[in-house]
Amino acid sequence: MGAQHEHQFKVIGTRPIRHDGVDKVTGRARYGADITLPGLLHGKVLRSPHPHARIKSIETSEAHALPGVKAVITGADFPEIEPGMLQIGENFVNPRHLAANIMARGKVLYDGHAVAAVAATSPHVAEEALKLIRVEYELLPFVQNVREAMQDDAVILHPDLRTAGVDAGDDKETNIANHIQFSRGDLAAGFAAAEIVIDREFATTMVHQGYIEPHNAVAQYNQDGKATVWVSTQGPFAVRELCGTMLQINRGDIKVVPAEIGGGFGGKTTVYLEPLALLLSKLTGRPVKMVMSRSEVLRATGPTPGSHIRAKIGVTREGKITAAELHLLFEAGAFPGSPVAAGCMTVLAPYDLENFQIDGYDVVLNKPKTCAYRAPGATNPALAAETILDELAEKLGIDPLEIRRINGAKEGTAQPAGPQFKRIGYLETVEAIHNSEHYQSPPPQSANGKLRGRGVATGFWFNAAFQSSATVSINTDGTANVVTGSPDIGGSRASCAMIAAEVLGLRAEDMHPVVADTESIGHTDTTGGSRVTFATGLAVYEAAQDAVGQLKQRAATVWKVKPEDVAYQDGVLSCLTNGHESLSLKEIAPKFPRAGGPVMGRASVRPRGVGPAFAAHVVDVEVDPETGKVDILRYTAAQDVGKAVHPSYVEGQIQGGVAQGVGWALNEEYFYAEDGTMRNTGFLDYRMPTCLDLPMIETILVEVANPGHPIGIRGVGEVPIVPPPAAIANAIYRATGVRMTELPMSPAKVAKAILEKNGA
Amino acid sequence: MGAQHEHQFKVIGTRPIRHDGVDKVTGRARYGADITLPGLLHGKVLRSPHPHARIKSIETSEAHALPGVKAVITGADFPEIEPGMLQIGENFVNPRHLAANIMARGKVLYDGHAVAAVAATSPHVAEEALKLIRVEYELLPFVQNVREAMQDDAVILHPDLRTAGVDAGDDKETNIANHIQFSRGDLAAGFAAAEIVIDREFATTMVHQGYIEPHNAVAQYNQDGKATVWVSTQGPFAVRELCGTMLQINRGDIKVVPAEIGGGFGGKTTVYLEPLALLLSKLTGRPVKMVMSRSEVLRATGPTPGSHIRAKIGVTREGKITAAELHLLFEAGAFPGSPVAAGCMTVLAPYDLENFQIDGYDVVLNKPKTCAYRAPGATNPALAAETILDELAEKLGIDPLEIRRINGAKEGTAQPAGPQFKRIGYLETVEAIHNSEHYQSPPPQSANGKLRGRGVATGFWFNAAFQSSATVSINTDGTANVVTGSPDIGGSRASCAMIAAEVLGLRAEDMHPVVADTESIGHTDTTGGSRVTFATGLAVYEAAQDAVGQLKQRAATVWKVKPEDVAYQDGVLSCLTNGHESLSLKEIAPKFPRAGGPVMGRASVRPRGVGPAFAAHVVDVEVDPETGKVDILRYTAAQDVGKAVHPSYVEGQIQGGVAQGVGWALNEEYFYAEDGTMRNTGFLDYRMPTCLDLPMIETILVEVANPGHPIGIRGVGEVPIVPPPAAIANAIYRATGVRMTELPMSPAKVAKAILEKNGA
Repeated sequence: MGAQHEHQFKVIGTRPIRHDGVDKVTGRARYGADITLPGLLHGKVLRSPHPHARIKSIETSEAHALPGVKAVITGADFPEIEPGMLQIGENFVNPRHLAANIMARGKVLYDGHAVAAVAATSPHVAEEALKLIRVEYELLPFVQNVREAMQDDAVILHPDLRTAGVDAGDDKETNIANHIQFSRGDLAAGFAAAEIVIDREFATTMVHQGYIEPHNAVAQYNQDGKATVWVSTQGPFAVRELCGTMLQINRGDIKVVPAEIGGGFGGKTTVYLEPLALLLSKLTGRPVKMVMSRSEVLRATGPTPGSHIRAKIGVTREGKITAAELHLLFEAGAFPGSPVAAGCMTVLAPYDLENFQIDGYDVVLNKPKTCAYRAPGATNPALAAETILDELAEKLGIDPLEIRRINGAKEGTAQPAGPQFKRIGYLETVEAIHNSEHYQSPPPQSANGKLRGRGVATGFWFNAAFQSSATVSINTDGTANVVTGSPDIGGSRASCAMIAAEVLGLRAEDMHPVVADTESIGHTDTTGGSRVTFATGLAVYEAAQDAVGQLKQRAATVWKVKPEDVAYQDGVLSCLTNGHESLSLKEIAPKFPRAGGPVMGRASVRPRGVGPAFAAHVVDVEVDPETGKVDILRYTAAQDVGKAVHPSYVEGQIQGGVAQGVGWALNEEYFYAEDGTMRNTGFLDYRMPTCLDLPMIETILVEVANPGHPIGIRGVGEVPIVPPPAAIANAIYRATGVRMTELPMSPAKVAKAILEKNGA
Repeated sequence: MGAQHEHQFKVIGTRPIRHDGVDKVTGRARYGADITLPGLLHGKVLRSPHPHARIKSIETSEAHALPGVKAVITGADFPEIEPGMLQIGENFVNPRHLAANIMARGKVLYDGHAVAAVAATSPHVAEEALKLIRVEYELLPFVQNVREAMQDDAVILHPDLRTAGVDAGDDKETNIANHIQFSRGDLAAGFAAAEIVIDREFATTMVHQGYIEPHNAVAQYNQDGKATVWVSTQGPFAVRELCGTMLQINRGDIKVVPAEIGGGFGGKTTVYLEPLALLLSKLTGRPVKMVMSRSEVLRATGPTPGSHIRAKIGVTREGKITAAELHLLFEAGAFPGSPVAAGCMTVLAPYDLENFQIDGYDVVLNKPKTCAYRAPGATNPALAAETILDELAEKLGIDPLEIRRINGAKEGTAQPAGPQFKRIGYLETVEAIHNSEHYQSPPPQSANGKLRGRGVATGFWFNAAFQSSATVSINTDGTANVVTGSPDIGGSRASCAMIAAEVLGLRAEDMHPVVADTESIGHTDTTGGSRVTFATGLAVYEAAQDAVGQLKQRAATVWKVKPEDVAYQDGVLSCLTNGHESLSLKEIAPKFPRAGGPVMGRASVRPRGVGPAFAAHVVDVEVDPETGKVDILRYTAAQDVGKAVHPSYVEGQIQGGVAQGVGWALNEEYFYAEDGTMRNTGFLDYRMPTCLDLPMIETILVEVANPGHPIGIRGVGEVPIVPPPAAIANAIYRATGVRMTELPMSPAKVAKAILEKNGA
């Protein structure tokens, strides 16, 4: 089976009903908050009402004394963490920062920062107990703007923080955790060769992933030092590592059971409640459940960073980019670790450039520690580069897709971060949008006082590989179980099942996909980076092939021939050397006892052939110039999806990514009051788009097979969030004549910009 | 690592704390009855109060109408079952009989036979509803004695039943389901050559395994036709097959999650409640839990058969057995399938015989369908053969161990069932008892009106192999997870973990054993036949070696050498070809991402080298001649255990088997009243031995390595129940001069026998 011969696929590319569908629509799927255990206690967290303060004292005795309260913990109850970085799969985490984030040590660094936690016999008692904890704070000045945080005289969050990266060695207090740089060629010469240069600044605010299901954890610590954690997470193996580090428990002694997950989008890749629940369980000897409120999710979990970006791009009269210079200032939140490096590496990746310099700054400030969110770091600078390219095209008088065609990356193009692209589908997605019914139809015309326009933008995401394990075992009815360690946030049960079905020559319905706990399957890295169908899918592919090899051995034993004389196709074993009757899987399964035993394939992989994803989007908008409200009239997203294993779920990923991008573009933002507290901590105020705000998102699946994967699979889940803000900004410009440079492009901002343009 | 070089073992043979110990002693282990789910309904079963009756009608409308009742089912609600046998692993089950046993169809065949079941919002409502079900019975004559049931004019249970086996072809109504025969040599010539011949009849009654935890099942049937069953079972894969057959659900669509198990001893190898709960769940759309009372367990689950045995054995003056003839009449219960074949094949297996004939009859009668119980079928005839041998030794004037020495089987001896023994340890166990401090000490002397005596007996059990699967995966902390599909009824988590630890060169404590559900691990046959540490242990052994192979590959990648240039010992990888520093598992685990990925070994096996088990027991008893009560003064059991992986648990198996054998010998019996109903349906009346009834059982582990297993393992769990009744009967004889031939040897029977002997 080769990616080049897709006519051979029988299951890949079809649209079976998802295996977990009925459980989910009937309410039977078990989410983290559904877990209950005998003697369960309920935990609640006391959170800082201040953005920056020294904790002078915490008095917990009154809370302790409340009937029903079984334990109260503060940062002092956790073990001291050794300095140094912790390897989680292929990523590194600063465990001291993580420890200080899950529960403040000495200082609170943002509104919502955890200060203490209580375990009690009911959630109500636990909440009452929180009110009895007396925290004495010494308020400190705070900083919440990335450029202010970078000033020499800025309020300092971490006195021991020093800048890493290209400015490493500066031994001064700073909020700049890292300064990275990617460059090539001669920037000055490049700009000198340009006919037109645009230099502009952009700003975006923090936005949240907005998953429906709040964070939760149920932990049970046993007297023998072993523990179990049931949790809604994208990364059960990461939770194991992080909890082990936070509480100094051997990794293997912690079993993490991934519950069904109600959305993650990158936000459920670290820990918040898990170590608290575990410590409370250790102290009380009882299982402890903790579930966040929506307000806690918004105040205290990891959104994606706000940012300030300066971008300068020059082009020749022919539209060829001669130079690009970008400065990306990213809000890390209260602790270092924004995805600014990804922002730097993705922003110009769709283009073949000779001269560029991209500087990225990771800056701490008094907001929650950021976390991954769909293509983390890529959307912010795409707003800058993709709107400037639109403006350049306009000034050149060429189609905005044409400037992408002229500069577009292809096989052999060197990425900004260095390595050359293998076969990619950027130009094909641009072409797909160009040829789309949407783009070929006339642009929407303003009418009845409403302004209308069309915009385009493109985007890039690396996709990730990392490590995965899988087993494929044959049931006595000739069906198969497919076990992985990848929580299913985007249909990966279905895609993994379909990959196994393809290899085994069975139907998708004959597969039984299982997401196993950390003890029941080999190590598997976090679900994220659009890696699961690619990498876990590859493990499944190899495990299924291992099973096929065993099936051939079993048949060879039955027929008394050599395994190489047995063929396997479409779920049927046949003998190549003599006249034995072929055996279906269902027929051979009862013969296993006499033929060597059951069949279970396995594979553990760390694939090297990850295939990047590209997207090109077109959007029609309508702007009400009086209110500034922007409506999305039509939206089409084309994307190189490699090989769409289950096209409906690929389309769903694209539609979901666009929907989130629209929210980010038009409405969503972290709103902090003057006192540094977040004021829109519920879904009524933190305004995400609903189905009433969106048209049906049209999708075009471009299938440029990934040469690094036997089925041609590329990750598909992240890149769709990259183009929307830029595409919408470009459409707003075409409708109104104003270039929006700040997200969200909320009614007030758009109305103000139109008024200013009109000289009001 | 070879069985011959046991000095090489570092973990095998030690006594670490069991991995599941803390969970069990702290009450955290989750048993079947602990499972709860949202919307859970509770099911109860209406049972027949008659031993044999035609069901004329069942009126359920009043029960249906009771508020809280969600479903009522009878046999008519189950699908029709196709004729034919169902293969479960390597065993065959008659699914029509099973279907009629789990819920009566047309006729009830024993007191306690299920007639209807109810699901309601609480167990109390369900019980109330049972009282509202009106069953009209036509009472039929019944038969509960095996010899009566074999009469030509006996009451017939199944008009369509015909005798199979050597009498197959007789087309007449019968209760004899099977007549099997094993023979060798010339019986008449053998007896003619004998100096002494003893011919005697024996009787035993049904006894129950007496597991602490009653049967239970929680079932959830989904709208998509998939189902989950949580259940205390020895065989989750068998439960899947049986439920699938009973309800016509594809095997793969059923997931069986084995709960922790509170004892099984063979009794939890079939289904009773599972299909009922599943059907009730299907009808109600809600999960259904069912838990038996003790009375239901005793009335309606599968005990081991009562039996009638005639045994005739002849010996020469030198003690050589010249001929043996046995007739084994076994109570199958209401449906065919007693372990009479095993009885035939085991009873003479300790001896090297030239002439014998063993006839076995499987007979249905109006008692519950029997099920496996520890060495099923072997204990009943051992009472006969081993007491006659004692009597022969007495008449010859030789030590009762001497007659075993003279006739004992050894390597090369042909078993009664045909195949020759490989290396076995029968004579070694006899020798071990002979040399024991117990046997070498003077026999107990009668005193103060109490009669005392010493008896010996020996026993044999095949042990089983069947199919098993396992995975062994390496954690990031260098520990390992060991996943099997074998419910742990006798310490097999510990033994499997120790086998993996031995191969990996780690500590038992570094292993994390997991018993997985039927979707999460390859096919694994039922825990039974003392097969788990042997066969699942072999799968673990091979899976661990698969993991070691992968570890060598990872190290080879790190060191850029060939895998064959990497050595692995004691958990450390070292390079044989150059000066690389050795890597412990903990050190190499973080390098997996760059060296090929995680490490997960797997194996599925159907081993051929099963090693049989032999036991020799000695017991000292004290008999109160006035009351007939027998006390066990001292008990020593020697057993060939192959290689004791965890000697404490091997000793525990021996002690447990002896304790059950003592109960069977002295107290336990199914007591049926004249109306055919069982009258001792609770643990107050069904009198199992308590710790006050037993001395500490002394054990002698004889380790004759099984040549068919890389570690030398033999099953150890079953044979200890075989000798006790015979050994105790022999001891009672030595104390009192009376030969007991009926079990239980209860006070009334013993007192009566003593009175009769004394001419009263």
